Amino acid sequence: MHFELAFVLLFSIATAVAIVARYFKFPYTVALVVAGLTLGAVHLFDPPHLTKELLFAILLPGLIFEAAFHVEFRKFWKNKMAIHALAIPGLVASGAITALILSPVVGGLHLVEDFGFIHAFVFASVIVSTDPIAVVGLFKALGAPKRLAVLVEGESLLNDGTAVVLFTLILAVANGAQFTVGGATLDFIRVAGMGGLIGCALGFGISQVIQRIDDAMVEITLTMIAAYGSFVVAEHFHYSGVIATVAAGMLCGNGVASTSMSPTTRVAVASFWEYLAFALNSVVFLLIGLEVQLSSLLASWKPVLLAYVAVLIGRAVVVYGVSGLLRFTSEKMPWRWSAVLTWSGLRGAISMVLVLGLPDDFAHRELLVNMTFGVVVLSIIVQGLTMAPLLKRLGITGLKDIYQEKYELARGRVGAIHAALLALEGMRRTRDIPADVLAQLEKDYQQKATAAEQDLSALKQQTNRFHEEEHQEAMRRVLIVEKDSLLKSYQRGVISKEAFEHLITELDERLAHVKDPEGHVPLEESSPALPADAVGT
Amino acid sequence: MHFELAFVLLFSIATAVAIVARYFKFPYTVALVVAGLTLGAVHLFDPPHLTKELLFAILLPGLIFEAAFHVEFRKFWKNKMAIHALAIPGLVASGAITALILSPVVGGLHLVEDFGFIHAFVFASVIVSTDPIAVVGLFKALGAPKRLAVLVEGESLLNDGTAVVLFTLILAVANGAQFTVGGATLDFIRVAGMGGLIGCALGFGISQVIQRIDDAMVEITLTMIAAYGSFVVAEHFHYSGVIATVAAGMLCGNGVASTSMSPTTRVAVASFWEYLAFALNSVVFLLIGLEVQLSSLLASWKPVLLAYVAVLIGRAVVVYGVSGLLRFTSEKMPWRWSAVLTWSGLRGAISMVLVLGLPDDFAHRELLVNMTFGVVVLSIIVQGLTMAPLLKRLGITGLKDIYQEKYELARGRVGAIHAALLALEGMRRTRDIPADVLAQLEKDYQQKATAAEQDLSALKQQTNRFHEEEHQEAMRRVLIVEKDSLLKSYQRGVISKEAFEHLITELDERLAHVKDPEGHVPLEESSPALPADAVGT
Repeated sequence: MHFELAFVLLFSIATAVAIVARYFKFPYTVALVVAGLTLGAVHLFDPPHLTKELLFAILLPGLIFEAAFHVEFRKFWKNKMAIHALAIPGLVASGAITALILSPVVGGLHLVEDFGFIHAFVFASVIVSTDPIAVVGLFKALGAPKRLAVLVEGESLLNDGTAVVLFTLILAVANGAQFTVGGATLDFIRVAGMGGLIGCALGFGISQVIQRIDDAMVEITLTMIAAYGSFVVAEHFHYSGVIATVAAGMLCGNGVASTSMSPTTRVAVASFWEYLAFALNSVVFLLIGLEVQLSSLLASWKPVLLAYVAVLIGRAVVVYGVSGLLRFTSEKMPWRWSAVLTWSGLRGAISMVLVLGLPDDFAHRELLVNMTFGVVVLSIIVQGLTMAPLLKRLGITGLKDIYQEKYELARGRVGAIHAALLALEGMRRTRDIPADVLAQLEKDYQQKATAAEQDLSALKQQTNRFHEEEHQEAMRRVLIVEKDSLLKSYQRGVISKEAFEHLITELDERLAHVKDPEGHVPLEESSPALPADAVGT
Repeated sequence: MHFELAFVLLFSIATAVAIVARYFKFPYTVALVVAGLTLGAVHLFDPPHLTKELLFAILLPGLIFEAAFHVEFRKFWKNKMAIHALAIPGLVASGAITALILSPVVGGLHLVEDFGFIHAFVFASVIVSTDPIAVVGLFKALGAPKRLAVLVEGESLLNDGTAVVLFTLILAVANGAQFTVGGATLDFIRVAGMGGLIGCALGFGISQVIQRIDDAMVEITLTMIAAYGSFVVAEHFHYSGVIATVAAGMLCGNGVASTSMSPTTRVAVASFWEYLAFALNSVVFLLIGLEVQLSSLLASWKPVLLAYVAVLIGRAVVVYGVSGLLRFTSEKMPWRWSAVLTWSGLRGAISMVLVLGLPDDFAHRELLVNMTFGVVVLSIIVQGLTMAPLLKRLGITGLKDIYQEKYELARGRVGAIHAALLALEGMRRTRDIPADVLAQLEKDYQQKATAAEQDLSALKQQTNRFHEEEHQEAMRRVLIVEKDSLLKSYQRGVISKEAFEHLITELDERLAHVKDPEGHVPLEESSPALPADAVGT
């Protein structure tokens, strides 16, 4: 019963924080951490602790699944080099840099006696992975360009696998084991790869079942099974649960989006996960704040601050390095984005849980815990609060001018009305609803459609930049239908392999000349370049 | 982690059961209990136990809140005499009758040595309260008249308070305490009354907050706080948690329904609770099945069967008695309903948890546990499976009159014929089957279609009430399609979050003006008043 009371209290606090934060337009996650810190300092009640069990059994799988569920695989795949470079070698490099800066400064300057390389490395491996929960929460609230969000979220979803392997290795070395690059690589492939495989298998299986039934209750349950099941199975065999859940989430999300799931079901599934993520997020960030003992943190403010700077430097060097290398590939990105990528490296609950897992007799354990908690709290509060201004200053948030907004409203409306007309036509054909009943509705909707389209074309006459965008989008979709039809013909044996390959090559060449829906990206990127006074008029 | 794995397993089993049950049109809750019994018998895995903590901390508050949330206070109040008579004096009387039957039969006939009045009374107090979870689950699935459902649900939501007081008292007497009617009455007023007060206070406060904000995430959280908070606070002070949650649920439900809550929020809150109730129900009924050891139950089949009969007789006497008295009031009901009320007295998890709470050294503990589990399982399976035929036989299910039935038949036929025609058209287009082969089939089907549609329009001329109903249905479906289309546009990045939210709000407002399928409700209420021979002819 105590457990339940604690959660009722947590939710009550979270609700109060949400209402106040919304009123003052303060970022919700940051407000939760601050509330947690304050409540922890006054010792009003005995909160549940952020244990590995709680995080791994309840909080993490749900949150990660929801984040992965909404990642569009196609967009993720288009940024695969950047994401993997940041999440695997980048993570190792940035950990090494942090450790190399920290060890001589803290130990060498005698701030703390006997703080050697190995302690610095343990700290670095604990803190180095960015936390998907914190990062995704932040980016959802801001209107950043989609591709930037995909980069940041993709990296944070993947780098955890690397970090856990790194941490295990360094801890083994601290306990006297031998370190070999080959062994480390093998370990990584095993832990991350098998995790991914488990997640893919479960995610694929479940998305197959989802496609065959239509029952919102059952389908929500199936997504829950995918989320928690993949995590628990992978962790059970000591593979990466996070990677497994990420894989399951992406497969389910893309399966669900592409299939013939009925609209009612899709809406129910989406809104269930929206709330689950909100509730779990509220708990995680409150617990992060509650877990920290402010007095103990303030007592060691010097190493905490040094650690924070070292972590930021490590990340900056890697991000700019990777961005530099990517300039020679198809995934190049504006330099301004590197600043945002660096600054979006929030740390979170995973780091806190990892550091609490250090053996009790581990040298400098308390200091390491303080440094980790300190960096987590600083990153969430400082970076969380300054991200929106940074984006604005770099001219990245303000993706939309007034036309764009009106235009999107109009397009959304036209799309919805036509979907409705199609549905009406479907009802008429299947005689689900008698034709005479439908007549009036159809007439209404046709009138609406005409009105909405007039709005749209009026908007278009004011500026003609939307035309090209839509033309490209239509081309792309038609080409993909052609490709799909070719694939089917080939599979059915209607055309030979040679013919198939010949035609596909032709199609791909045409596709290459069509900008994808990232078609917005150049627009988004260029809009800040508009004279400032052209925006908003 | 073990805990989590067990729940993933439970959910996986529940999903499989749901899919199979739906396919065979078998009641879901009954299927879950049967699946639990089977799995428990083969010892495939070690399931979590149905402990008081699990039931009280997680399962019960959510389920009871959801049930109370949907009780319309107005309808509840119109049946207040019947509900209270059944739930308070009726419960005591039916427990006494059961005990008085059971004690001489089981003990007196020497089926079991030393089975005295006190054991019979302990058993009766454990089993006497109908379980809201089981009953509500059953009634939701059937199309019973709304007022009958309100009666059954209202009684089952309220009688638990009486039962717990009765149980505590009888246990005290069994341990040698004095029994006084005055003391018992006072205890009851304290436990139930204070529980109700706590629930009302919390429910009222929260529904006030809900009316002042408009944020689906926060409002769902607030209803969660109302559900679990009222329960945990009342139980903490040893008052009735069930009554507290019932009160909070009714106040929130009616507050939410009457206020200016935005439609988006209302839809989100309702669909969240719909899923939560589904998930918790799945777990409860599986666990009920898993908790029972079939072999031990079968070994004492005689007392179990006797107990079941005694329980049914106790309930029948009270229900018919109360119905008889109500004939002199404004709440009189058809005699046929008494049979349904008797038969709908399903027992459930609360009885099982109460009996497991008996001290280990209590005389005949094992027998009492077996009798309780046996009656619970029998009531769920036997009454659960026969309720629908009973309602039909009594002419009560038939919320639909003869027109409705004929009309649905005709509509189903028209739908099927047109699906066939569409498929034929598809075959013709893809040339899957040569056109000349199809010609004859198409001709046949077109004739059938014409005939079926003539039937349909003939039916419509007899009564025109279907037209409006269908119009509403078509509207609702079209609006949901529009919503889905918007969701897709948003996910594909075609429209921004702001545009999405703006348009969704518009749609939800329109959806709110469309009657939902409960739109049939007025129809249901009036149909039992039709002359009995008009039904089914």
